[in-house]
Amino acid sequence: MVVAEISVVPLGTGSPSVSRYVAECVKVLKESGLKYEVTAMGTIVEGGLENVLDAARRVHEVPFNAGAQRVVTTIKIDDRRDKEISIRGKVDAVARRLMEG
Amino acid sequence: MVVAEISVVPLGTGSPSVSRYVAECVKVLKESGLKYEVTAMGTIVEGGLENVLDAARRVHEVPFNAGAQRVVTTIKIDDRRDKEISIRGKVDAVARRLMEG
Amino acid sequence: MVVAEISVVPLGTGSPSVSRYVAECVKVLKESGLKYEVTAMGTIVEGGLENVLDAARRVHEVPFNAGAQRVVTTIKIDDRRDKEISIRGKVDAVARRLMEG
Amino acid sequence: MVVAEISVVPLGTGSPSVSRYVAECVKVLKESGLKYEVTAMGTIVEGGLENVLDAARRVHEVPFNAGAQRVVTTIKIDDRRDKEISIRGKVDAVARRLMEG
Repeated sequence: MVVAEISVVPLGTGSPSVSRYVAECVKVLKESGLKYEVTAMGTIVEGGLENVLDAARRVHEVPFNAGAQRVVTTIKIDDRRDKEISIRGKVDAVARRLMEG
Repeated sequence: MVVAEISVVPLGTGSPSVSRYVAECVKVLKESGLKYEVTAMGTIVEGGLENVLDAARRVHEVPFNAGAQRVVTTIKIDDRRDKEISIRGKVDAVARRLMEG
Repeated sequence: MVVAEISVVPLGTGSPSVSRYVAECVKVLKESGLKYEVTAMGTIVEGGLENVLDAARRVHEVPFNAGAQRVVTTIKIDDRRDKEISIRGKVDAVARRLMEG
Repeated sequence: MVVAEISVVPLGTGSPSVSRYVAECVKVLKESGLKYEVTAMGTIVEGGLENVLDAARRVHEVPFNAGAQRVVTTIKIDDRRDKEISIRGKVDAVARRLMEG
């Protein structure tokens, strides 16, 4: 299991708004069956490394299908193999530390 | 107002766990007075550009103060000037698009 | 053809130096047959999208094979479909603009 | 001394080409006096942390001054305090490892 952040930015679209493209990307992630969370700066997913890369590959195509001519996609993968990680587990670990003072 | 993501990664600490450092970073962000949200892949903040960069500068020092010898900090700034953006506003814009079908 | 930057960071290795891991990653990229360029902040590759993602996938495994327990890999893909791009072409385009004044 | 990568992406400009904006950013970096290197995926700079953040702050304004309404700027800082690092030194360290086999 890895936790990863995927950010897809279409360039040269003529409008500074990108929510239309992001919403289409989210639909593709939903179909992937991966657990995901939309944030203000990207979408965080959790799953097997291959599944996450496959999903990123499909999401990257979305703005092209919607007419964009250039897309910059960033995939940041956090892969830890000494223990299981998850979206929830990572945030909880920080919260626990904060409560300890 | 900008929305930004700050990610601070200490290297060579001897343990793959970094939640201890992240929790200290969150305390520093809390003191900054900026609105922030902890995610599994970083912390998202919203505020004036100068304030955000100042906060990132202080957060970057945290792992050094806790003993780390090398820190890789990534600051990703989304700055839109044709309309006001916010952490909440950006996520809501995507949610609205999804509800439109 | 896409141009992409791949950055692989092992966590918790006990030493702030990572050049040993980066050199192993470069060897794997060399075997991939992709054109690549090592920079101070990552490795830039050029090739087909599938080949680049496959190479990133293999490079991501390198620090684990060398004993790391956690790896953060960032893949940033610049994909432009209205014209051919390349590592050389992108840098040359900026140089030409600078010479125009 | 830190080594950092700065990437400035204007959104909604109406053209997928961004070399015009990047060239203007490079001019601003040149004026900063920092050592820099233009790559296909961003610009790498070396200098004191404050100077690097100041330069990034100025570079971030460039596309707005050229008419863009939204800019996504990424600043990735590699800061190592157990030994001096530089753009040249980091690349050389990997090259040496590769020559060792």
